[in-house]
Amino acid sequence: MPGPLPFDLDTLKKIAQTYPTPFYIYDEQAIRANVRRFLKSFDWLPFKQYFAVKATPNPYIVKLLAEEGLGADCSTLAELVLAEKVGLKGHDIMFSSNNTPAEDYIKARELGAFINLDDISQLDYLEDVAGLPECISFRYNPGSGFIEGNAIIGKPEEAKWGLTREQMFQAYALAQQKGIRRFGLHTMVVSNETDVHNIIKTALVMFELASELHRKLSIRLEYINLGGGVGIPYHPDEHPVDLEVWGRSVRKLYEEIIIPAGINNGSQPVALATECGRLITGPYGYLVCLVLHKKAIYKNYVGLDASMADLMRPGMYGAYHHITVPGKETAPHDCCYDVTGGLCENNDKFAIDRMLPHIDCGDYVVIHDAGAHGRAMGFNYNGKLRTKELLLKPDGSIQMIRRAETLDDLFATLDFENL
Amino acid sequence: MPGPLPFDLDTLKKIAQTYPTPFYIYDEQAIRANVRRFLKSFDWLPFKQYFAVKATPNPYIVKLLAEEGLGADCSTLAELVLAEKVGLKGHDIMFSSNNTPAEDYIKARELGAFINLDDISQLDYLEDVAGLPECISFRYNPGSGFIEGNAIIGKPEEAKWGLTREQMFQAYALAQQKGIRRFGLHTMVVSNETDVHNIIKTALVMFELASELHRKLSIRLEYINLGGGVGIPYHPDEHPVDLEVWGRSVRKLYEEIIIPAGINNGSQPVALATECGRLITGPYGYLVCLVLHKKAIYKNYVGLDASMADLMRPGMYGAYHHITVPGKETAPHDCCYDVTGGLCENNDKFAIDRMLPHIDCGDYVVIHDAGAHGRAMGFNYNGKLRTKELLLKPDGSIQMIRRAETLDDLFATLDFENL
Repeated sequence: MPGPLPFDLDTLKKIAQTYPTPFYIYDEQAIRANVRRFLKSFDWLPFKQYFAVKATPNPYIVKLLAEEGLGADCSTLAELVLAEKVGLKGHDIMFSSNNTPAEDYIKARELGAFINLDDISQLDYLEDVAGLPECISFRYNPGSGFIEGNAIIGKPEEAKWGLTREQMFQAYALAQQKGIRRFGLHTMVVSNETDVHNIIKTALVMFELASELHRKLSIRLEYINLGGGVGIPYHPDEHPVDLEVWGRSVRKLYEEIIIPAGINNGSQPVALATECGRLITGPYGYLVCLVLHKKAIYKNYVGLDASMADLMRPGMYGAYHHITVPGKETAPHDCCYDVTGGLCENNDKFAIDRMLPHIDCGDYVVIHDAGAHGRAMGFNYNGKLRTKELLLKPDGSIQMIRRAETLDDLFATLDFENL
Repeated sequence: MPGPLPFDLDTLKKIAQTYPTPFYIYDEQAIRANVRRFLKSFDWLPFKQYFAVKATPNPYIVKLLAEEGLGADCSTLAELVLAEKVGLKGHDIMFSSNNTPAEDYIKARELGAFINLDDISQLDYLEDVAGLPECISFRYNPGSGFIEGNAIIGKPEEAKWGLTREQMFQAYALAQQKGIRRFGLHTMVVSNETDVHNIIKTALVMFELASELHRKLSIRLEYINLGGGVGIPYHPDEHPVDLEVWGRSVRKLYEEIIIPAGINNGSQPVALATECGRLITGPYGYLVCLVLHKKAIYKNYVGLDASMADLMRPGMYGAYHHITVPGKETAPHDCCYDVTGGLCENNDKFAIDRMLPHIDCGDYVVIHDAGAHGRAMGFNYNGKLRTKELLLKPDGSIQMIRRAETLDDLFATLDFENL
C-alpha cells in the first residue's frame, strides 16, 4: 500500500512557486529511516548494501545513502564516474555489468571496485583490457526450476545474465589458475519481487552453491552478493517485503549452511551483500504534476504536464503507479479517468480506467512510488524535456538536486551552425 | 522485405575508422528517391507531405526533406523550434499535438503554422493563450467500428486523440462563431499500418466527413490531412505499401466524393496533406554496431556495443528489426542467437532466437529499418550514452549530422560542485 504523502496541498503550492511542476521530489527523512530499518535486519553479520545507481542516478541521493553506510552498485562507466564524484571508491563500489566494454572495466579497476563477471569469457577479457584484480566474483544464473520469473526479468533460463552452474565451477577454477585467491559470489534473479519466500530462496540457492564451491575448489568466499530485485507495493492491495522476516530467515540459512560448511572461520566470516535500488528509494519519490487539460471523448481523459518522457514504467511495462490528488484525498473516488501525458504515443498513459476524485484543470496530481526507475528511464521522444528533481530535507526545506532539461540540452549534440 | 545495404563491409570499415561504432547512418539518396516516388503518387492535386519530425528529429534530415518539398509535422515546442532552425515557417509547418502546453501554441502561432486542435476545449484555450489563427483544423477520432487498431496505436475508441463525430460538428460551429472562416480537417488513426486498404479507408471516412461538414456547416475545407501511420515492411515476409495504388485509390475517392460534394471549386481545390514519418525515412536508416562479446549459457548470446538506449522498439514493442552481418550475407544462417545490448534490463534484446550466420566478436552487425523512431526514442538508462548519426551522401561521402553524447551531456543537469 503506497503510503501517505509527506506534503500537503499548501506545502505543494509553496514548493511549486519556486519550482514549477512537473518535478520529482524525494523524501530524505523517509529514505534514511528506511535504510536504517533495512540495515538493522542484517546487523548480525558483516553486511553491505550497494545501492543500484541505475534506479536513481542522482549524486545527491547516492551521497545521502553513502552517509548511511551504503555503497554503489554500478553497471556502466557513467555510474562508476557518478559514484566516484560522490566520493565512493574501492570496495564501496560493486561493478556488476553485462556485455561490458573495455573502458568500463578500466574505470572499475582504477577505482578498485569489486568486479563481478557475467561470463566465463570475461575473465580473459578483463585480464587483457584492464588486468585482473585481487578479488573477483561471478554471477550465477540458476536457469529453469529456480523460480517462476516475473514479467520484467523473465525466466532466468531466457535471461542474458550470468553463468550456468557448470560454468561457475569452471570459472572459479580458471580464476584460481590465473592466481586469483580472493572471491565473491553473485546472483540477481528476480525483479520487483515482493514474495519474501522467493527472495529467501535466493539465499538458500547461493549458500548451497557457496558450500559446494568450497568443497570442490576450496574456495573461501569473502562475500555473497544476493543481488537486488526486491519489490515494493505499487498497488494498494500489495504489501511490502517484511525486512525482519527476510533478515531472520537468511540468518537461519546462514547458520544452517554457511557455518557448518566451514567456509566461515572465526576471524573472517563470509559477508553478505545486496544491491537493491527500488526497495531503497522507490516508495519515497513522487512525480508531481499539474492538470493541464481535460477531455471527454469515448473516455474521460486528464492530461498532465508530465508525460511518459518523465516516467516510462506505466507505458513500457503497464506498471501500476498509485495516484493522489492532494486536497481531494477524502473526496469520493467516483470518476473514471485515463491519466495521460502529451506524447504522440498511445501508451503515454500514467493510468487507465483509474477511479479518482473529480479532477479539475489546475489540480495537482501526485504519482507515487516514482523514487526508482523513474527519472532514470526518461527519454526525449517528441522533443520532450526531462524534468527536475527536488529533495525534501528533514527540516522541510527543498533542495533542487537536478535541474530540468532545456532546449539547449536537447539540441546539444546538434550543430545548427553548419546546417 | 528490408532492402540490401547501401554499403559493403569494406566501406563500413572505412567509415568506422573515422566514426567508431555504434552509429546511425541514413542513406540520403534513397530517402530522396523515396520521397519523389511518394509525391508522384499524389501529383494530381495540391498535396503537401509534412514529415513527422518526431520520427527522426535531426535538422539535417528535415532540411533535405524540405529541399524535396516536404513540410514539418510538429507536436511540441522543441519540434517547432527545430523546424524553424531548418528554415521552415508558415504553412510548411503542421502543428498537431495532444494535451498541449500554452508555450507550444504560442510558438506555433509565432511561426504561422497550421494548427490542428485535438479537443473542442482547445479552441478557447488557444484563443486565451495565443490568439486564434485565420485557419484551424480539428482532429477526428472515428471511434470503434472504423478499423481494427494495431497493438501500437490501440483501438481508436481507447486512444486519447481527437474528437468524436458529434464533437467535430460542434467544434467547427464554435470556430465559425468565433469568426474563423478558413478550415482544415485532420485525422490519424493507424500506426505502422501496411494494409493499403485500411489506409485508403481513412481517406473515405475523411472525405465523407468533409462532405457532411460542408453540407451542414457550409464549410469549404482548404485541406484534408489524412495523417500518417503508414507502415514499412520490417519483416522479410512483409511488403511495402504500394504508393501508386494508394494515390490512385485516393484520387478515385476524391473524384467520387469531394468533387460532387461541391466543396472543390475550380480556383481553390481542397488540398490533401499527410504527415508520414516512418514511411519517409524508416527503411533508409541503419544502426551499425560491433560485436563486443559472445556468451553461451542456456541460450547463445551476441552482445553489441549498442543497446536499447539507442534503439527502443524491439524492447518496448517486441518489434522485429532485420539484421545483416556485412560480409556474411550469403553464409548459411544456421546459428540461433539472442542479439543483446549491455543494459541491466531484461528486454534489452535487438532480436530473440534469430537465425543468423555464425558471428564472431569484432563482426559488424547492421540493424535495418532504424531510420524512424530509432535514435529519437533513445534514453540514458544505466547511464548509457546515445549514439551519433551519420548521413551517407549521394557522392558516397559521410557527414556526421549528430555527435554522440558524452558524459558531460549526461551530467549536464547535475551540479557536482555543491554536492
